[in-house]
Amino acid sequence: MRDVSIIGIGQTPVAEHWEKSLKELAGERVDALYVVNMLSGALNGQEHLGALISDWVGLRGVEAVKIEAACGSGAAALRLGYVAVAGELADFVVVAGVEKMTDNPGDQVTAALAMASDADFEAQNGLSFVALNALLMRRYMHEFGVRHRDFAPFSVNAHKNAVGNPHALFPHAVTADDFCAAKMIADPVNLLDSSPVCDGAAAVVLCPTELARSFATRPVRIRASAAATDTIALHDRRDPLTLEAAALSAGKAYSQARVTPRDIDVFELHDAFTIMSVLSLEACGFAERGRGVHLGSQGDIAIGGRIPITTMGGLKARGHPVGATGIYQVIEVALQLRDQAGANQVRDARLGMAQNIGGSGATVVTTILEVAQ
Amino acid sequence: MRDVSIIGIGQTPVAEHWEKSLKELAGERVDALYVVNMLSGALNGQEHLGALISDWVGLRGVEAVKIEAACGSGAAALRLGYVAVAGELADFVVVAGVEKMTDNPGDQVTAALAMASDADFEAQNGLSFVALNALLMRRYMHEFGVRHRDFAPFSVNAHKNAVGNPHALFPHAVTADDFCAAKMIADPVNLLDSSPVCDGAAAVVLCPTELARSFATRPVRIRASAAATDTIALHDRRDPLTLEAAALSAGKAYSQARVTPRDIDVFELHDAFTIMSVLSLEACGFAERGRGVHLGSQGDIAIGGRIPITTMGGLKARGHPVGATGIYQVIEVALQLRDQAGANQVRDARLGMAQNIGGSGATVVTTILEVAQ
Repeated sequence: MRDVSIIGIGQTPVAEHWEKSLKELAGERVDALYVVNMLSGALNGQEHLGALISDWVGLRGVEAVKIEAACGSGAAALRLGYVAVAGELADFVVVAGVEKMTDNPGDQVTAALAMASDADFEAQNGLSFVALNALLMRRYMHEFGVRHRDFAPFSVNAHKNAVGNPHALFPHAVTADDFCAAKMIADPVNLLDSSPVCDGAAAVVLCPTELARSFATRPVRIRASAAATDTIALHDRRDPLTLEAAALSAGKAYSQARVTPRDIDVFELHDAFTIMSVLSLEACGFAERGRGVHLGSQGDIAIGGRIPITTMGGLKARGHPVGATGIYQVIEVALQLRDQAGANQVRDARLGMAQNIGGSGATVVTTILEVAQ
Repeated sequence: MRDVSIIGIGQTPVAEHWEKSLKELAGERVDALYVVNMLSGALNGQEHLGALISDWVGLRGVEAVKIEAACGSGAAALRLGYVAVAGELADFVVVAGVEKMTDNPGDQVTAALAMASDADFEAQNGLSFVALNALLMRRYMHEFGVRHRDFAPFSVNAHKNAVGNPHALFPHAVTADDFCAAKMIADPVNLLDSSPVCDGAAAVVLCPTELARSFATRPVRIRASAAATDTIALHDRRDPLTLEAAALSAGKAYSQARVTPRDIDVFELHDAFTIMSVLSLEACGFAERGRGVHLGSQGDIAIGGRIPITTMGGLKARGHPVGATGIYQVIEVALQLRDQAGANQVRDARLGMAQNIGGSGATVVTTILEVAQ
């Protein structure tokens, strides 16, 4: 098994390139293209994205597939790219996430997103993802004596950090008062608890670290990559407030990287809803069960805090184009580690983590990154 | 890179188990589950099949994703399982294909299948997959002076071989006269040129060959696995009658296995339509361009012939549950190599090949198998 690094990144609306562009590289060297997407069948009338995109970007002939694991698709595909390169079955793999949600009526998008839940038991009974998160949030508030406003710092922090990000959908600040006054969607989840429906695309290029220096001055090494699953239905969990797959996946990643949560300098977590941020922080060992929400009010999650999260706006304010999100997260960690995060730079960020979650916690993929030495 | 073998198979309606069942094995050892499916989003209102199936079959916690490459999904996912095991990133991988098409009205299924074509240019203009294959067949007939009835042996052979297969959807024989008289669907493609809409599921368990003997007396080794793509749209091909991705994928597989077409004893090809069988045989080097159709009338494709195809009924008569098809094909080759094909046994079958095709030839995955020595 060999070391794997990211040597190129690109994200919409503005492409970013390191020393070589994806297309330059693509023409000669790419062995495989893994396209990441959740909803093209339901919303765009198009499957077979592997062949579609490989032809479109000038990679005709290359091995190509689509990989789907709901909102956790991005990191799941990144992990398969990592597996191919680490195992020496491929040298150059492009992992490209894309989601186009906004051409459809809102209720159709909500129904399509509900396909990430258990269709027969959850979606069938009208439980949308907002509703599932509302159940989680209400239970958390009840069990730990927490008020809705205690979640405000997660939304405020995400929006503040989006201001400096040219790729963010909502690059504007909000206050705790804005949060408390926001329109209710599914009590207690309101508009500012929730990530938006949107479009986006982002891609990374992977290759063996030993070759990476020919293509990038500061390749970003994948130090750990681990995936785990839990029951797809919330009602089947042993404890709905414990994201077991997040704990399992993070635990495996810590173990692969031989680090602890204390070693993580920046953490791009899956803040599809504020409650998800809290549960993810707890599952990954940054807070005890029932205490994660207080990392917000204590300032721990801010840039400069103990464990900075959503440093470029997160799913909440950068946006959540579901299949592509996991790739955006990894790119943002890479920018932090390469000292390219501009006004949002976390000082001395050496070790970064991204956690991508599918469904209400059924698929979780954790990636730990550092600049290749 | 290490050697990889299949140590367990199962297919609906009747499960088959070698020395250990999938579930027995699953309980302790499985590292990853790759679920293969094309249409669950469009037809079943369910995505996130990795988490869904892993929980359902008792694999909660395990890494799981869905892999899609239209009708080529099965072998594409098998290949990713092979990559993970060969590269030593996993020891035991289950690759499970499933497709449930029949709960939906026929026109909805036809529209869903068209998502494997270029939605913007082909599906948008009303080109279904039958229509795309009709264009190919008509062009072939025109270019090489071939009559429709010359394709009859492919359908007759598939149906004849299905008679001995307890898993086949149409286990009954048809004659060349039946073929010529069959109902027209999209001229010149008629009902007996075409594989049916249906449901099915099939799974294989992969592990390193060095461990395989603990689980199976005759593990089947994956001697080669290669994938390639072509343009998704038929009108973008250099020559519509040359399946370039099939040639590329087979060429890579021959090269990996260090064999030639002459060494292949049994070939499970992708006979979604009779014309596809012909083009696949030509692309894989069993006949010159424009001559593949004559392998039918010469008896070459029959059990006992030079290159037996669709030995258990193929897509035409065993059935074509699209996402699962590639797994059925590999299982049928495995049965041949293990001398377990009953009345359909190809004598002295040592080297078997399966070719799984997505779209009108945009994704092609070729697998070469043999009993592990």
